Amino acid sequence: PSSRVKHPPWLLSRAKVLTIDTMNPTVKKVEYAVRGPIVLRAVELERELSEGMKKPFSEVIKANIGDAHAMGQQPITFFRQVLALCSYPELLNDSTFPEDAKSRARRILQSCGGNSMGALQLVFQGIDSVRQDVARYIERRDGGVPCDPDDIYLTTGASDGIVTMLKLLVCGEGATRTGVMISIPQYPLYSAALAELGAVQINYYLNEEKCWSMDISELQRALDEARRHCNPRALCVINPGNPTGQVQSRQCIEDVIRFAANERLLLMADEVYQDNVYAEGCQFHSFKKVLFEMGPEYSDTVELVSFHSTSKCYMGECGFRGGYMEIINMDDEVKAQLTKLVSVRLCPPVPGQALMDLVVNPPQPGEPSHDNFIKERTATLSALAEKAKLTEQVLNTIQGISCNPVQGAMYSFPRITIPEKAIQEAMDKGQEPDMFYCMKMLEETGICLVPGSGFGQTDGTYHFRMTILPPTDKLTILLNKVKEFHQKFTQQYS
Amino acid sequence: PSSRVKHPPWLLSRAKVLTIDTMNPTVKKVEYAVRGPIVLRAVELERELSEGMKKPFSEVIKANIGDAHAMGQQPITFFRQVLALCSYPELLNDSTFPEDAKSRARRILQSCGGNSMGALQLVFQGIDSVRQDVARYIERRDGGVPCDPDDIYLTTGASDGIVTMLKLLVCGEGATRTGVMISIPQYPLYSAALAELGAVQINYYLNEEKCWSMDISELQRALDEARRHCNPRALCVINPGNPTGQVQSRQCIEDVIRFAANERLLLMADEVYQDNVYAEGCQFHSFKKVLFEMGPEYSDTVELVSFHSTSKCYMGECGFRGGYMEIINMDDEVKAQLTKLVSVRLCPPVPGQALMDLVVNPPQPGEPSHDNFIKERTATLSALAEKAKLTEQVLNTIQGISCNPVQGAMYSFPRITIPEKAIQEAMDKGQEPDMFYCMKMLEETGICLVPGSGFGQTDGTYHFRMTILPPTDKLTILLNKVKEFHQKFTQQYS
Repeated sequence: PSSRVKHPPWLLSRAKVLTIDTMNPTVKKVEYAVRGPIVLRAVELERELSEGMKKPFSEVIKANIGDAHAMGQQPITFFRQVLALCSYPELLNDSTFPEDAKSRARRILQSCGGNSMGALQLVFQGIDSVRQDVARYIERRDGGVPCDPDDIYLTTGASDGIVTMLKLLVCGEGATRTGVMISIPQYPLYSAALAELGAVQINYYLNEEKCWSMDISELQRALDEARRHCNPRALCVINPGNPTGQVQSRQCIEDVIRFAANERLLLMADEVYQDNVYAEGCQFHSFKKVLFEMGPEYSDTVELVSFHSTSKCYMGECGFRGGYMEIINMDDEVKAQLTKLVSVRLCPPVPGQALMDLVVNPPQPGEPSHDNFIKERTATLSALAEKAKLTEQVLNTIQGISCNPVQGAMYSFPRITIPEKAIQEAMDKGQEPDMFYCMKMLEETGICLVPGSGFGQTDGTYHFRMTILPPTDKLTILLNKVKEFHQKFTQQYS
Repeated sequence: PSSRVKHPPWLLSRAKVLTIDTMNPTVKKVEYAVRGPIVLRAVELERELSEGMKKPFSEVIKANIGDAHAMGQQPITFFRQVLALCSYPELLNDSTFPEDAKSRARRILQSCGGNSMGALQLVFQGIDSVRQDVARYIERRDGGVPCDPDDIYLTTGASDGIVTMLKLLVCGEGATRTGVMISIPQYPLYSAALAELGAVQINYYLNEEKCWSMDISELQRALDEARRHCNPRALCVINPGNPTGQVQSRQCIEDVIRFAANERLLLMADEVYQDNVYAEGCQFHSFKKVLFEMGPEYSDTVELVSFHSTSKCYMGECGFRGGYMEIINMDDEVKAQLTKLVSVRLCPPVPGQALMDLVVNPPQPGEPSHDNFIKERTATLSALAEKAKLTEQVLNTIQGISCNPVQGAMYSFPRITIPEKAIQEAMDKGQEPDMFYCMKMLEETGICLVPGSGFGQTDGTYHFRMTILPPTDKLTILLNKVKEFHQKFTQQYS
């Protein structure tokens, strides 16, 4: 038979099965600026530096991504003690570990099959006791609004939950294809997921002049236009904002909920920065709390999914990929489908589930680890608040750069003036002008930022996203380098 | 404006945005038997037992899923020590931890941003040093066949890698839609992923009479038929087999590779059970090793992706969701797209990456933890070998049940004779006969198995999948209960 033929000569030159022309076309459309060409070049530069190549800088500073620990933020001692105890339960006999850490570890292990973090769970939504703790956390946070552990799904970071929810939503073809409203500027996970799912991305623009707030009239404009060519079914909000660092007011959130209700949109609230609020007068309001304060006409009907994670806030534990989503007013049959869908991937990583549990159930007053926990959390959040202020202040001293207050989250998203000549040179190279700007900054200073074009922005405006995560002394140097670079760049192209 | 109207009365009765009729139709098509209705009922039964309800059994025995730790298998001490050290690096000062565990932990932490498992990595494929260790492991395993760390992608368990690769492959519509060949019986992750991606599932049947081996003639039949209505582009093989427990011979693997080469199919080799080989005369041969032994006509051209994980073998650490895939002969542009795609999800969980590192770089002779590591690994694998034999032997003493040797992996997949009357009763209930059988067994004995229909089987044959994971004494009781149940069931319906 033909399958027994040895070494057919044509094999040597046979074309590949999988080529750029024969691969999934939706995957090709995916873009992800946070890790785009700038980051690839930054990795290269790091390697070149380590190989002794001469550069105008001695280190690459990665201010491109909200990766707190990589920038020197310290983990919360209590969290890591419990994780060590859960990893190696022999340590439960070690008298140097505090009792509250041990009791948390015992409770987590008791909820794991075979008392091991290495086990899966029979309950696909995540460990029972963790979901109970999440529900109690949400109730405390939202002033007593009830939360059912059965509405909690643990996830592999917030990204996983967001992609899963979008996946559930997508249907229809052509003019009935599902459309999803996302803010511009946006976190590019959304555009990447929508591209991959073949859903229609509906852009609504945040108001830069009003500190990146949401305007209902802009939402309405975007929706009305989109209705001509697709079926808009969901509205995504990131609050506090990424990449824009704003904190939406309670009134704004109420207006958005009313808009979603009137227009029959499912609401997706990305609330992973809920503890990252710095500006005076600003406060985090969860969409759920506001929804329930609006009364049963809204709280009984509006479909809302809220996302949280272990990656941000004072924890910054991105590497553990922990997270949860709470689903509110979801149709029971859809919920059963959601449960089925998540069960195929078996379960979110258990260490991440354990960490999520600690975040929602930290040391309580009177417990041995409480004081140190508060001290560490406060220190991290105060430092972030200070750096948010510092970033805004220094950036606004630079002619040609203007930066809204960094009210929350971990990023500044200043607007930059790029001279005509530079725009021209970028265009000639086929680059976005702010990509050209950021790439030049990287080559000259070692500072790695993400160009605004990677997040979307009003045509003719240019921005970059810079994290506020480097330690204060480093951040000061970084900001001064940005200033110096911007002045030089402006001069060069004027 | 309309968005300010308060409490419109129609809101109270408004229909949901997301319903079973308006959700993603491909998600609805997904089935996942390993966690289907039987498992849902098992969870209910456990709750009922815990609430004091009387049942004909005192506990539910979950022999449905390869979740080793949940069944009492102990983690490898060394692995957990290193994970504890990485979680809470203060422990590096603890003299009770062995030096080799500390040096492994230091090496892993040095590769993490900010020396923390809480950091992401700039290199999206996974931690550099882990990928280097994986590459060296593969070279050792395959007798020196070279492996480039750049071809290694760390994954969130093997499932994640498999879904990602299938996603890359899917394109075309109608008769040009991508088809993927999978074995029947299959692990239902494959059918679930193909359904979700809207790819065409091409079934090839394993030969039960020849201990679930692969017949090239059957592959050819399946392929030729499929070519009439889709574009077959990939061939998936699970070796050692799940749910069927066979270990493919070297000759068989060579034939399969030649078939794939001749027919221009990308090969996906699910090799997560590579250390789980029990039967005498059986040996694990990696697809890569065989490919390279076949000479450059094959090794330079056949596109192969191999998957491994921390979840099986002697580790059984499912909860950590660690894994890797190695891509061989992949087109460079496609590889760049793959790298982009994985970067959107940021990174696989770092504790899982760390664990994968330990699996591929365990204690070496002369290191303080070596003897104990070997002792623990041998004990686990010997116990599994013993239980594989025991399962096969006892099942084959039951009239109406015949079971192929459990050569490897963690499952038996015996064929069961179901009396006509029972088949009729099942049909009347709209159930598959083996689902009816397994559900009855669960209700009467507390034993949770997965019916063969969940994996696919030749029409008119019935099977169940049972793990060999329960401790020997429990497994003996379980097998006797299965025997008793089967006899009673056969009698009842004769």
